[in-house]
Amino acid sequence: MRDFSRDHDWLSINTATVRQSQGQPLPLPAILDACAALGIRAVSPWRDQVQAAGLDAVARQVRALGLALSGYCRGGMFPAADAEGLRAARDDNRRAVDEACTLGAPCLVLVVGGLPGALQGRAAHKDIAAARAQVRDGIAELLDYARAARMPLAIEPLHPMYAADRACVNTMEQALDLCDELDPLRTGALGVAVDVYHVWWDPKLEQQITRAGRERLLAFHVCDWLTPTTDLLNDRGMMGDGVIDIPRIRGWVEAQGFAGYSEVEIFSTGNWWRRAHQQTLATCIERHRSAV
Amino acid sequence: MRDFSRDHDWLSINTATVRQSQGQPLPLPAILDACAALGIRAVSPWRDQVQAAGLDAVARQVRALGLALSGYCRGGMFPAADAEGLRAARDDNRRAVDEACTLGAPCLVLVVGGLPGALQGRAAHKDIAAARAQVRDGIAELLDYARAARMPLAIEPLHPMYAADRACVNTMEQALDLCDELDPLRTGALGVAVDVYHVWWDPKLEQQITRAGRERLLAFHVCDWLTPTTDLLNDRGMMGDGVIDIPRIRGWVEAQGFAGYSEVEIFSTGNWWRRAHQQTLATCIERHRSAV
Repeated sequence: MRDFSRDHDWLSINTATVRQSQGQPLPLPAILDACAALGIRAVSPWRDQVQAAGLDAVARQVRALGLALSGYCRGGMFPAADAEGLRAARDDNRRAVDEACTLGAPCLVLVVGGLPGALQGRAAHKDIAAARAQVRDGIAELLDYARAARMPLAIEPLHPMYAADRACVNTMEQALDLCDELDPLRTGALGVAVDVYHVWWDPKLEQQITRAGRERLLAFHVCDWLTPTTDLLNDRGMMGDGVIDIPRIRGWVEAQGFAGYSEVEIFSTGNWWRRAHQQTLATCIERHRSAV
Repeated sequence: MRDFSRDHDWLSINTATVRQSQGQPLPLPAILDACAALGIRAVSPWRDQVQAAGLDAVARQVRALGLALSGYCRGGMFPAADAEGLRAARDDNRRAVDEACTLGAPCLVLVVGGLPGALQGRAAHKDIAAARAQVRDGIAELLDYARAARMPLAIEPLHPMYAADRACVNTMEQALDLCDELDPLRTGALGVAVDVYHVWWDPKLEQQITRAGRERLLAFHVCDWLTPTTDLLNDRGMMGDGVIDIPRIRGWVEAQGFAGYSEVEIFSTGNWWRRAHQQTLATCIERHRSAV
Protein backbone atom coordinates (compact mmCIF):
# COMPACT_ATOMS: atom_id res chain seq x y z
CA MET A 1 0.00 0.00 0.00
CA ARG A 2 1.33 3.40 -0.96
CA ASP A 3 2.45 5.83 1.72
CA PHE A 4 0.33 8.98 1.41
CA SER A 5 1.57 10.56 4.61
CA ARG A 6 4.39 12.62 3.19
CA ASP A 7 2.93 14.29 0.10
CA HIS A 8 -0.25 14.68 -1.89
CA ASP A 9 1.01 13.38 -5.21
CA TRP A 10 -1.95 10.99 -5.51
CA LEU A 11 -4.66 13.39 -4.40
CA SER A 12 -7.31 14.37 -6.91
CA ILE A 13 -10.07 16.87 -6.29
CA ASN A 14 -13.51 16.17 -7.65
CA THR A 15 -14.59 19.67 -8.51
CA ALA A 16 -17.97 19.26 -6.79
CA THR A 17 -16.02 19.41 -3.51
CA VAL A 18 -15.44 23.14 -4.02
CA ARG A 19 -18.47 23.80 -6.20
CA GLN A 20 -19.29 26.51 -3.70
CA SER A 21 -16.98 28.74 -1.67
CA GLN A 22 -18.52 30.55 1.30
CA GLY A 23 -21.93 29.61 -0.06
CA GLN A 24 -21.33 31.16 -3.48
CA PRO A 25 -20.81 29.21 -6.73
CA LEU A 26 -17.13 28.90 -7.61
CA PRO A 27 -16.53 28.69 -11.38
CA LEU A 28 -14.43 25.84 -12.71
CA PRO A 29 -11.53 28.03 -13.94
CA ALA A 30 -11.07 29.36 -10.39
CA ILE A 31 -11.23 25.81 -9.02
CA LEU A 32 -8.55 24.62 -11.42
CA ASP A 33 -6.27 27.57 -10.59
CA ALA A 34 -6.73 27.01 -6.86
CA CYS A 35 -5.88 23.31 -7.15
CA ALA A 36 -2.80 23.95 -9.23
CA ALA A 37 -1.64 26.65 -6.83
CA LEU A 38 -1.66 24.11 -3.99
CA GLY A 39 0.31 21.53 -5.93
CA ILE A 40 -2.70 19.30 -6.47
CA ARG A 41 -1.89 17.27 -9.56
CA ALA A 42 -5.30 15.98 -10.62
CA VAL A 43 -8.98 16.88 -10.75
CA SER A 44 -12.25 15.31 -11.84
CA PRO A 45 -14.57 17.94 -13.29
CA TRP A 46 -18.36 17.87 -13.60
CA ARG A 47 -20.07 18.36 -16.92
CA ASP A 48 -22.25 21.28 -15.85
CA GLN A 49 -19.18 23.16 -14.63
CA VAL A 50 -17.33 22.40 -17.87
CA GLN A 51 -20.26 23.54 -19.94
CA ALA A 52 -20.49 26.82 -18.04
CA ALA A 53 -16.81 27.54 -18.63
CA GLY A 54 -16.62 26.21 -22.18
CA LEU A 55 -15.20 22.81 -23.07
CA ASP A 56 -12.26 23.99 -25.18
CA ALA A 57 -11.28 26.69 -22.71
CA VAL A 58 -11.28 24.14 -19.89
CA ALA A 59 -9.22 21.69 -21.95
CA ARG A 60 -6.66 24.43 -22.65
CA GLN A 61 -6.52 25.50 -19.01
CA VAL A 62 -6.09 21.92 -17.80
CA ARG A 63 -3.17 21.46 -20.20
CA ALA A 64 -1.62 24.82 -19.37
CA LEU A 65 -1.72 24.05 -15.65
CA GLY A 66 -0.31 20.58 -16.20
CA LEU A 67 -3.27 18.97 -14.43
CA ALA A 68 -4.20 15.34 -14.90
CA LEU A 69 -7.78 14.09 -14.75
CA SER A 70 -8.81 11.17 -12.54
CA GLY A 71 -12.19 10.90 -14.25
CA TYR A 72 -15.01 12.88 -15.81
CA CYS A 73 -18.34 13.29 -14.02
CA ARG A 74 -20.61 12.05 -15.39
CA GLY A 75 -22.52 10.02 -17.92
CA GLY A 76 -25.41 7.70 -17.23
CA MET A 77 -29.05 8.42 -16.35
CA PHE A 78 -30.07 5.76 -18.89
CA PRO A 79 -33.66 4.87 -17.90
CA ALA A 80 -36.46 6.82 -19.51
CA ALA A 81 -40.23 6.62 -19.69
CA ASP A 82 -40.36 6.54 -23.51
CA ALA A 83 -38.30 6.02 -26.65
CA GLU A 84 -37.62 9.70 -27.04
CA GLY A 85 -36.16 9.84 -23.54
CA LEU A 86 -33.96 6.83 -24.23
CA ARG A 87 -32.67 8.44 -27.43
CA ALA A 88 -31.94 11.69 -25.62
CA ALA A 89 -29.98 9.79 -22.96
CA ARG A 90 -28.06 7.91 -25.64
CA ASP A 91 -27.12 11.11 -27.46
CA ASP A 92 -26.17 12.91 -24.29
CA ASN A 93 -23.96 10.02 -23.19
CA ARG A 94 -22.15 10.05 -26.50
CA ARG A 95 -21.47 13.74 -26.03
CA ALA A 96 -20.13 12.96 -22.56
CA VAL A 97 -17.70 10.44 -24.09
CA ASP A 98 -16.58 13.04 -26.63
CA GLU A 99 -16.04 15.63 -23.91
CA ALA A 100 -14.08 13.15 -21.79
CA CYS A 101 -11.82 12.53 -24.78
CA THR A 102 -11.32 16.26 -25.37
CA LEU A 103 -10.35 16.71 -21.72
CA GLY A 104 -8.04 13.71 -21.68
CA ALA A 105 -9.95 11.93 -18.93
CA PRO A 106 -8.91 8.34 -18.11
CA CYS A 107 -12.55 7.28 -17.78
CA LEU A 108 -16.14 8.49 -17.92
CA VAL A 109 -17.93 7.85 -14.64
CA LEU A 110 -21.48 6.51 -15.03
CA VAL A 111 -24.22 7.30 -12.54
CA VAL A 112 -26.69 5.04 -14.21
CA GLY A 113 -30.05 6.54 -13.22
CA GLY A 114 -33.06 5.14 -11.37
CA LEU A 115 -36.79 5.13 -11.94
CA PRO A 116 -37.59 7.65 -14.69
CA GLY A 117 -38.99 10.83 -13.19
CA ALA A 118 -38.16 9.89 -9.59
CA LEU A 119 -35.49 12.57 -9.32
CA GLN A 120 -38.22 15.10 -10.04
CA GLY A 121 -40.47 13.41 -7.45
CA ARG A 122 -42.74 11.95 -10.14
CA ALA A 123 -41.69 8.38 -10.82
CA ALA A 124 -43.21 7.12 -14.07
CA HIS A 125 -43.41 3.59 -12.65
CA LYS A 126 -42.18 1.37 -9.80
CA ASP A 127 -40.50 -1.37 -11.83
CA ILE A 128 -36.88 -1.21 -10.75
CA ALA A 129 -36.11 -4.39 -12.68
CA ALA A 130 -37.23 -2.64 -15.87
CA ALA A 131 -35.04 0.35 -15.05
CA ARG A 132 -32.12 -2.00 -14.52
CA ALA A 133 -32.74 -3.60 -17.89
CA GLN A 134 -32.65 -0.16 -19.52
CA VAL A 135 -29.37 0.54 -17.74
CA ARG A 136 -27.91 -2.68 -19.07
CA ASP A 137 -29.02 -1.91 -22.61
CA GLY A 138 -27.84 1.69 -22.35
CA ILE A 139 -24.37 0.73 -21.19
CA ALA A 140 -24.13 -1.97 -23.85
CA GLU A 141 -24.91 0.53 -26.59
CA LEU A 142 -22.65 3.24 -25.17
CA LEU A 143 -19.83 0.76 -24.78
CA ASP A 144 -19.56 0.31 -28.55
CA TYR A 145 -19.23 4.04 -28.98
CA ALA A 146 -16.79 4.42 -26.06
CA ARG A 147 -14.59 1.56 -27.28
CA ALA A 148 -14.23 3.27 -30.65
CA ALA A 149 -13.28 6.47 -28.84
CA ARG A 150 -10.95 4.56 -26.51
CA MET A 151 -12.73 5.99 -23.47
CA PRO A 152 -13.19 3.51 -20.59
CA LEU A 153 -16.57 3.56 -18.84
CA ALA A 154 -16.62 3.36 -15.03
CA ILE A 155 -19.93 2.21 -13.52
CA GLU A 156 -20.29 3.82 -10.10
CA PRO A 157 -22.47 1.73 -7.79
CA LEU A 158 -24.37 4.26 -5.71
CA HIS A 159 -25.51 3.81 -2.12
CA PRO A 160 -28.89 2.01 -1.97
CA MET A 161 -30.49 5.19 -0.63
CA TYR A 162 -30.18 6.52 -4.19
CA ALA A 163 -31.75 3.48 -5.86
CA ALA A 164 -35.01 5.26 -6.67
CA ASP A 165 -33.79 8.52 -8.10
CA ARG A 166 -30.10 8.44 -9.02
CA ALA A 167 -28.76 4.96 -9.65
CA CYS A 168 -30.34 1.53 -9.55
CA VAL A 169 -26.89 -0.11 -9.59
CA ASN A 170 -26.24 -0.25 -5.88
CA THR A 171 -23.56 -2.80 -5.07
CA MET A 172 -20.17 -3.73 -6.41
CA GLU A 173 -21.49 -7.21 -7.08
CA GLN A 174 -24.26 -5.84 -9.29
CA ALA A 175 -21.88 -3.54 -11.16
CA LEU A 176 -19.39 -6.35 -11.72
CA ASP A 177 -22.14 -8.65 -12.95
CA LEU A 178 -22.80 -6.01 -15.62
CA CYS A 179 -19.10 -5.79 -16.42
CA ASP A 180 -18.83 -9.56 -16.77
CA GLU A 181 -21.85 -9.64 -19.06
CA LEU A 182 -20.84 -6.74 -21.29
CA ASP A 183 -17.06 -7.05 -21.27
CA PRO A 184 -16.35 -10.70 -20.51
CA LEU A 185 -12.80 -10.48 -21.80
CA ARG A 186 -11.89 -7.80 -19.25
CA THR A 187 -10.51 -5.53 -21.93
CA GLY A 188 -10.39 -2.48 -19.68
CA ALA A 189 -13.18 -0.78 -21.63
CA LEU A 190 -15.64 -1.24 -18.77
CA GLY A 191 -15.09 -1.18 -15.05
CA VAL A 192 -16.17 0.41 -11.80
CA ALA A 193 -15.61 3.56 -9.80
CA VAL A 194 -15.29 2.63 -6.12
CA ASP A 195 -16.56 5.43 -3.89
CA VAL A 196 -16.15 4.54 -0.23
CA TYR A 197 -19.26 6.56 0.65
CA HIS A 198 -21.42 4.29 -1.46
CA VAL A 199 -19.92 0.90 -0.67
CA TRP A 200 -18.30 1.01 2.77
CA TRP A 201 -21.25 -0.77 4.43
CA ASP A 202 -21.22 -3.76 2.06
CA PRO A 203 -20.34 -7.03 3.81
CA LYS A 204 -19.11 -8.36 0.46
CA LEU A 205 -16.91 -5.33 -0.34
CA GLU A 206 -13.50 -6.93 0.05
CA GLN A 207 -14.61 -10.00 -1.87
CA GLN A 208 -15.97 -7.91 -4.73
CA ILE A 209 -12.93 -5.63 -4.93
CA THR A 210 -10.84 -8.77 -5.30
CA ARG A 211 -13.22 -10.00 -7.98
CA ALA A 212 -12.94 -6.67 -9.81
CA GLY A 213 -9.18 -6.90 -10.06
CA ARG A 214 -6.83 -4.46 -11.71
CA GLU A 215 -8.67 -4.24 -15.05
CA ARG A 216 -12.00 -3.28 -13.55
CA LEU A 217 -10.85 -0.77 -10.89
CA LEU A 218 -10.95 2.50 -12.81
CA ALA A 219 -11.41 5.10 -10.08
CA PHE A 220 -11.28 5.43 -6.28
CA HIS A 221 -13.31 8.14 -4.53
CA VAL A 222 -13.13 9.16 -0.89
CA CYS A 223 -15.06 11.20 1.65
CA ASP A 224 -16.63 10.02 4.93
CA TRP A 225 -19.96 8.90 6.43
CA LEU A 226 -21.05 11.17 9.27
CA THR A 227 -23.11 10.07 12.28
CA PRO A 228 -25.66 11.48 12.23
CA THR A 229 -26.07 12.17 8.52
CA THR A 230 -28.60 14.98 8.19
CA ASP A 231 -29.23 14.97 4.43
CA LEU A 232 -29.34 12.08 1.97
CA LEU A 233 -27.35 13.92 -0.69
CA ASN A 234 -25.39 16.86 0.63
CA ASP A 235 -24.05 15.89 4.05
CA ARG A 236 -20.91 13.99 3.15
CA GLY A 237 -18.03 14.27 5.55
CA MET A 238 -14.35 15.09 5.17
CA MET A 239 -12.10 12.05 5.39
CA GLY A 240 -11.43 11.33 9.05
CA ASP A 241 -14.60 13.01 10.33
CA GLY A 242 -16.81 9.92 9.95
CA VAL A 243 -16.88 6.18 10.46
CA ILE A 244 -15.44 4.77 7.24
CA ASP A 245 -12.17 2.88 7.60
CA ILE A 246 -10.78 4.41 4.42
CA PRO A 247 -7.21 3.06 4.66
CA ARG A 248 -8.55 -0.47 4.94
CA ILE A 249 -10.59 -0.08 1.75
CA ARG A 250 -7.71 1.63 -0.07
CA GLY A 251 -5.55 -1.31 0.98
CA TRP A 252 -7.98 -3.73 -0.67
CA VAL A 253 -8.06 -1.67 -3.86
CA GLU A 254 -4.30 -1.30 -4.03
CA ALA A 255 -3.79 -5.00 -3.32
CA GLN A 256 -5.38 -5.53 -6.75
CA GLY A 257 -2.82 -3.23 -8.35
CA PHE A 258 -4.77 0.01 -8.42
CA ALA A 259 -2.17 2.79 -8.46
CA GLY A 260 -4.22 5.83 -9.46
CA TYR A 261 -5.48 8.92 -7.72
CA SER A 262 -7.53 9.06 -4.56
CA GLU A 263 -10.29 11.46 -5.59
CA VAL A 264 -12.03 13.55 -2.94
CA GLU A 265 -15.73 14.04 -3.68
CA ILE A 266 -17.67 15.85 -0.97
CA PHE A 267 -21.14 17.37 -1.28
CA SER A 268 -21.70 19.47 1.83
CA THR A 269 -24.27 22.23 1.85
CA GLY A 270 -24.05 22.72 5.59
CA ASN A 271 -20.30 22.68 6.15
CA TRP A 272 -17.61 22.56 3.47
CA TRP A 273 -19.51 24.49 0.81
CA ARG A 274 -19.95 27.27 3.36
CA ARG A 275 -16.22 27.60 3.93
CA ALA A 276 -13.65 29.32 1.78
CA HIS A 277 -12.50 26.89 -0.90
CA GLN A 278 -8.86 27.45 0.02
CA GLN A 279 -9.59 26.08 3.48
CA THR A 280 -11.51 23.13 2.07
CA LEU A 281 -8.67 22.27 -0.31
CA ALA A 282 -6.04 22.64 2.42
CA THR A 283 -8.08 20.29 4.60
CA CYS A 284 -8.34 17.79 1.73
CA ILE A 285 -4.56 17.80 1.46
CA GLU A 286 -4.08 17.35 5.19
CA ARG A 287 -6.63 14.55 5.44
CA HIS A 288 -5.31 12.85 2.30
CA ARG A 289 -2.06 12.48 4.22
CA SER A 290 -3.53 11.55 7.59
CA ALA A 291 -6.85 9.75 7.01
CA VAL A 292 -6.78 8.11 3.55
CA MET B 1 -51.31 -14.47 -3.24
CA ARG B 2 -53.99 -13.48 -0.79
CA ASP B 3 -56.62 -10.94 -1.77
CA PHE B 4 -56.35 -7.99 0.63
CA SER B 5 -58.76 -5.77 -1.27
CA ARG B 6 -61.93 -6.65 0.57
CA ASP B 7 -61.00 -6.57 4.26
CA HIS B 8 -58.15 -5.85 6.62
CA ASP B 9 -58.00 -9.20 8.34
CA TRP B 10 -54.23 -9.45 7.74
CA LEU B 11 -53.33 -5.89 8.67
CA SER B 12 -51.14 -5.33 11.70
CA ILE B 13 -50.18 -1.95 13.10
CA ASN B 14 -46.68 -1.46 14.37
CA THR B 15 -47.37 0.88 17.25
CA ALA B 16 -44.61 3.28 16.20
CA THR B 17 -46.88 4.27 13.30
CA VAL B 18 -49.16 6.13 15.73
CA ARG B 19 -46.55 6.84 18.37
CA GLN B 20 -47.66 10.45 18.02
CA SER B 21 -51.09 11.89 17.27
CA GLN B 22 -51.21 15.52 16.17
CA GLY B 23 -47.63 15.87 17.31
CA GLN B 24 -48.30 14.65 20.85
CA PRO B 25 -47.20 11.27 22.27
CA LEU B 26 -50.00 8.71 22.18
CA PRO B 27 -49.76 6.14 25.00
CA LEU B 28 -49.88 2.48 24.11
CA PRO B 29 -53.23 1.75 25.84
CA ALA B 30 -54.89 4.38 23.67
CA ILE B 31 -53.22 2.93 20.56
CA LEU B 32 -54.47 -0.56 21.37
CA ASP B 33 -58.02 0.70 21.98
CA ALA B 34 -58.00 2.67 18.73
CA CYS B 35 -56.80 -0.34 16.72
CA ALA B 36 -59.40 -2.66 18.24
CA ALA B 37 -62.15 -0.12 17.62
CA LEU B 38 -61.31 -0.15 13.91
CA GLY B 39 -61.37 -3.93 13.68
CA ILE B 40 -57.60 -4.18 13.35
CA ARG B 41 -56.72 -7.66 14.55
CA ALA B 42 -53.01 -7.38 15.27
CA VAL B 43 -50.32 -5.01 16.50
CA SER B 44 -46.59 -5.01 17.04
CA PRO B 45 -45.69 -2.95 20.11
CA TRP B 46 -42.40 -1.26 20.97
CA ARG B 47 -40.63 -1.96 24.22
CA ASP B 48 -40.43 1.64 25.38
CA GLN B 49 -44.19 2.01 24.94
CA VAL B 50 -44.81 -1.25 26.81
CA GLN B 51 -42.54 -0.20 29.62
CA ALA B 52 -44.31 3.14 29.99
CA ALA B 53 -47.71 1.41 30.23
CA GLY B 54 -46.57 -1.55 32.32
CA LEU B 55 -45.92 -5.00 30.88
CA ASP B 56 -48.63 -6.89 32.73
CA ALA B 57 -51.24 -4.23 32.11
CA VAL B 58 -50.45 -4.29 28.39
CA ALA B 59 -50.61 -8.09 28.32
CA ARG B 60 -54.03 -7.98 30.00
CA GLN B 61 -55.31 -5.31 27.64
CA VAL B 62 -54.10 -7.17 24.56
CA ARG B 63 -55.91 -10.30 25.72
CA ALA B 64 -59.06 -8.41 26.69
CA LEU B 65 -59.22 -6.76 23.26
CA GLY B 66 -58.58 -10.05 21.49
CA LEU B 67 -55.56 -8.60 19.68
CA ALA B 68 -52.88 -10.78 18.16
CA LEU B 69 -49.25 -9.69 17.94
CA SER B 70 -47.29 -9.84 14.68
CA GLY B 71 -44.00 -9.29 16.49
CA TYR B 72 -42.34 -7.47 19.36
CA CYS B 73 -40.02 -4.50 18.70
CA ARG B 74 -37.25 -4.96 19.52
CA GLY B 75 -34.17 -6.75 20.73
CA GLY B 76 -30.68 -6.42 19.32
CA MET B 77 -28.10 -3.63 19.67
CA PHE B 78 -25.48 -6.28 20.39
CA PRO B 79 -22.15 -4.51 19.70
CA ALA B 80 -20.48 -2.72 22.57
CA ALA B 81 -17.17 -1.08 23.27
CA ASP B 82 -16.34 -3.20 26.31
CA ALA B 83 -17.27 -6.37 28.20
CA GLU B 84 -19.65 -4.50 30.48
CA GLY B 85 -21.56 -3.18 27.48
CA LEU B 86 -21.77 -6.65 25.97
CA ARG B 87 -23.13 -8.05 29.23
CA ALA B 88 -25.70 -5.28 29.49
CA ALA B 89 -26.87 -5.98 25.94
CA ARG B 90 -27.10 -9.70 26.70
CA ASP B 91 -29.18 -9.13 29.83
CA ASP B 92 -31.44 -6.63 28.12
CA ASN B 93 -32.06 -9.00 25.22
CA ARG B 94 -33.03 -11.79 27.61
CA ARG B 95 -35.54 -9.45 29.21
CA ALA B 96 -36.87 -8.68 25.73
CA VAL B 97 -37.40 -12.40 25.11
CA ASP B 98 -39.21 -12.71 28.44
CA GLU B 99 -41.44 -9.74 27.62
CA ALA B 100 -42.23 -11.14 24.18
CA CYS B 101 -43.32 -14.38 25.87
CA THR B 102 -45.52 -12.53 28.35
CA LEU B 103 -47.19 -10.64 25.50
CA GLY B 104 -47.65 -13.75 23.36
CA ALA B 105 -45.61 -12.40 20.46
CA PRO B 106 -44.84 -14.80 17.58
CA CYS B 107 -41.27 -13.48 17.35
CA LEU B 108 -38.82 -10.97 18.76
CA VAL B 109 -37.54 -8.63 16.05
CA LEU B 110 -33.79 -7.94 16.22
CA VAL B 111 -32.30 -4.63 15.13
CA VAL B 112 -28.78 -5.80 15.63
CA GLY B 113 -26.86 -2.57 16.24
CA GLY B 114 -23.92 -0.95 14.49
CA LEU B 115 -20.66 0.62 15.59
CA PRO B 116 -20.78 1.10 19.35
CA GLY B 117 -21.44 4.75 20.19
CA ALA B 118 -22.31 5.74 16.62
CA LEU B 119 -25.97 6.31 17.46
CA GLN B 120 -24.80 8.92 19.94
CA GLY B 121 -22.49 10.40 17.29
CA ARG B 122 -19.36 9.08 19.01
CA ALA B 123 -18.34 5.83 17.35
CA ALA B 124 -15.86 3.94 19.52
CA HIS B 125 -14.15 2.53 16.41
CA LYS B 126 -14.57 2.08 12.65
CA ASP B 127 -14.26 -1.69 12.46
CA ILE B 128 -17.61 -2.80 11.06
CA ALA B 129 -16.32 -6.36 10.67
CA ALA B 130 -15.70 -6.45 14.42
CA ALA B 131 -19.21 -5.13 15.09
CA ARG B 132 -20.59 -7.85 12.83
CA ALA B 133 -18.67 -10.48 14.73
CA GLN B 134 -20.20 -9.20 17.99
CA VAL B 135 -23.63 -9.39 16.37
CA ARG B 136 -23.04 -12.98 15.38
CA ASP B 137 -21.86 -13.91 18.87
CA GLY B 138 -24.71 -12.02 20.49
CA ILE B 139 -27.37 -13.73 18.41
CA ALA B 140 -25.75 -17.13 18.98
CA GLU B 141 -25.89 -16.64 22.75
CA LEU B 142 -29.41 -15.22 22.76
CA LEU B 143 -30.62 -18.04 20.54
CA ASP B 144 -29.97 -20.61 23.28
CA TYR B 145 -32.05 -18.56 25.69
CA ALA B 146 -34.80 -17.91 23.15
CA ARG B 147 -35.01 -21.57 22.12
CA ALA B 148 -35.60 -22.54 25.73
CA ALA B 149 -38.34 -19.90 25.93
CA ARG B 150 -39.76 -21.00 22.56
CA MET B 151 -39.48 -17.44 21.23
CA PRO B 152 -38.33 -17.21 17.59
CA LEU B 153 -35.80 -14.48 16.77
CA ALA B 154 -36.32 -12.44 13.60
CA ILE B 155 -33.21 -10.67 12.31
CA GLU B 156 -34.29 -7.51 10.52
CA PRO B 157 -31.80 -6.47 7.85
CA LEU B 158 -31.82 -2.68 7.93
CA HIS B 159 -31.24 -0.38 4.99
CA PRO B 160 -27.52 0.23 4.41
CA MET B 161 -27.99 3.88 5.40
CA TYR B 162 -28.29 2.59 9.00
CA ALA B 163 -25.15 0.45 8.88
CA ALA B 164 -23.15 2.79 11.10
CA ASP B 165 -25.57 3.49 13.89
CA ARG B 166 -28.51 1.07 13.95
CA ALA B 167 -27.78 -2.25 12.26
CA CYS B 168 -24.73 -3.64 10.51
CA VAL B 169 -26.82 -6.46 9.02
CA ASN B 170 -27.93 -4.77 5.82
CA THR B 171 -29.06 -7.32 3.28
CA MET B 172 -31.25 -10.40 3.24
CA GLU B 173 -28.26 -12.39 2.05
CA GLN B 174 -26.20 -11.35 5.06
CA ALA B 175 -29.07 -12.10 7.47
CA LEU B 176 -29.66 -15.50 5.91
CA ASP B 177 -25.97 -16.33 6.08
CA LEU B 178 -26.28 -15.77 9.83
CA CYS B 179 -29.38 -17.96 9.96
CA ASP B 180 -27.64 -20.73 8.07
CA GLU B 181 -24.67 -20.56 10.38
CA LEU B 182 -26.59 -20.44 13.67
CA ASP B 183 -29.64 -22.56 12.82
CA PRO B 184 -28.53 -24.86 10.01
CA LEU B 185 -31.42 -27.23 10.57
CA ARG B 186 -33.99 -24.49 9.87
CA THR B 187 -35.84 -25.24 13.08
CA GLY B 188 -37.85 -22.01 12.97
CA ALA B 189 -36.03 -20.61 15.99
CA LEU B 190 -34.19 -18.04 13.85
CA GLY B 191 -35.34 -16.19 10.77
CA VAL B 192 -35.78 -12.76 9.24
CA ALA B 193 -38.18 -9.85 9.32
CA VAL B 194 -38.62 -8.55 5.77
CA ASP B 195 -39.34 -4.82 5.78
CA VAL B 196 -39.88 -3.53 2.26
CA TYR B 197 -38.40 -0.14 3.22
CA HIS B 198 -35.06 -1.74 4.01
CA VAL B 199 -34.77 -4.25 1.20
CA TRP B 200 -36.80 -3.05 -1.80
CA TRP B 201 -33.68 -1.78 -3.62
CA ASP B 202 -31.80 -5.09 -3.42
CA PRO B 203 -31.21 -6.70 -6.83
CA LYS B 204 -31.01 -10.08 -5.09
CA LEU B 205 -34.24 -9.65 -3.12
CA GLU B 206 -36.39 -12.19 -4.92
CA GLN B 207 -33.58 -14.71 -4.91
CA GLN B 208 -32.99 -14.29 -1.19
CA ILE B 209 -36.69 -14.45 -0.27
CA THR B 210 -36.80 -17.75 -2.11
CA ARG B 211 -33.70 -18.86 -0.24
CA ALA B 212 -35.31 -17.87 3.08
CA GLY B 213 -38.32 -20.07 2.49
CA ARG B 214 -41.23 -20.60 4.81
CA GLU B 215 -39.25 -21.42 7.94
CA ARG B 216 -37.16 -18.26 7.85
CA LEU B 217 -39.85 -15.70 6.94
CA LEU B 218 -41.08 -14.61 10.36
CA ALA B 219 -42.45 -11.12 9.69
CA PHE B 220 -43.39 -8.82 6.80
CA HIS B 221 -43.34 -5.03 7.28
CA VAL B 222 -44.64 -2.40 4.88
CA CYS B 223 -44.46 1.34 4.32
CA ASP B 224 -43.11 3.22 1.29
CA TRP B 225 -39.99 4.99 0.01
CA LEU B 226 -40.69 8.63 -0.80
CA THR B 227 -38.92 10.66 -3.49
CA PRO B 228 -37.46 12.82 -2.22
CA THR B 229 -36.80 11.38 1.22
CA THR B 230 -36.03 14.31 3.51
CA ASP B 231 -34.83 12.51 6.64
CA LEU B 232 -32.87 9.29 7.02
CA LEU B 233 -35.01 7.98 9.86
CA ASN B 234 -38.39 9.67 10.13
CA ASP B 235 -39.61 10.28 6.59
CA ARG B 236 -41.17 6.95 5.70
CA GLY B 237 -44.17 7.05 3.43
CA MET B 238 -47.64 5.51 3.58
CA MET B 239 -48.06 2.51 1.28
CA GLY B 240 -48.88 3.79 -2.19
CA ASP B 241 -47.27 7.20 -1.73
CA GLY B 242 -43.78 6.10 -2.80
CA VAL B 243 -41.92 3.96 -5.31
CA ILE B 244 -41.89 0.50 -3.75
CA ASP B 245 -43.75 -2.17 -5.68
CA ILE B 246 -45.17 -3.67 -2.48
CA PRO B 247 -47.56 -6.21 -4.06
CA ARG B 248 -44.68 -7.69 -6.06
CA ILE B 249 -42.60 -8.21 -2.92
CA ARG B 250 -45.58 -9.59 -0.98
CA GLY B 251 -46.11 -11.99 -3.84
CA TRP B 252 -42.57 -13.29 -3.47
CA VAL B 253 -42.98 -13.71 0.28
CA GLU B 254 -46.33 -15.46 -0.02
CA ALA B 255 -45.01 -17.72 -2.77
CA GLN B 256 -42.80 -19.21 -0.03
CA GLY B 257 -45.85 -19.91 2.10
CA PHE B 258 -45.82 -16.85 4.34
CA ALA B 259 -49.40 -16.36 5.52
CA GLY B 260 -49.04 -13.91 8.40
CA TYR B 261 -49.81 -10.25 8.95
CA SER B 262 -48.69 -7.35 6.84
CA GLU B 263 -47.38 -4.97 9.49
CA VAL B 264 -47.42 -1.23 8.84
CA GLU B 265 -44.41 0.51 10.35
CA ILE B 266 -44.14 4.21 9.51
CA PHE B 267 -41.91 6.77 11.22
CA SER B 268 -43.02 10.18 9.99
CA THR B 269 -42.24 13.29 11.98
CA GLY B 270 -43.33 15.63 9.22
CA ASN B 271 -46.58 14.02 8.09
CA TRP B 272 -48.34 11.07 9.73
CA TRP B 273 -47.23 11.80 13.29
CA ARG B 274 -48.71 15.28 12.89
CA ARG B 275 -52.14 13.93 11.97
CA ALA B 276 -54.80 12.55 14.25
CA HIS B 277 -54.09 8.87 14.84
CA GLN B 278 -57.62 7.92 13.79
CA GLN B 279 -56.89 9.35 10.35
CA THR B 280 -53.54 7.59 10.14
CA LEU B 281 -55.11 4.26 11.10
CA ALA B 282 -57.99 4.73 8.65
CA THR B 283 -55.46 5.43 5.90
CA CYS B 284 -53.48 2.31 6.84
CA ILE B 285 -56.65 0.27 6.44
CA GLU B 286 -57.48 1.83 3.08
CA ARG B 287 -53.95 1.42 1.73
CA HIS B 288 -53.67 -2.11 3.06
CA ARG B 289 -56.57 -2.92 0.77
CA SER B 290 -55.43 -0.88 -2.25
CA ALA B 291 -51.62 -0.71 -2.22
CA VAL B 292 -50.25 -3.75 -0.38
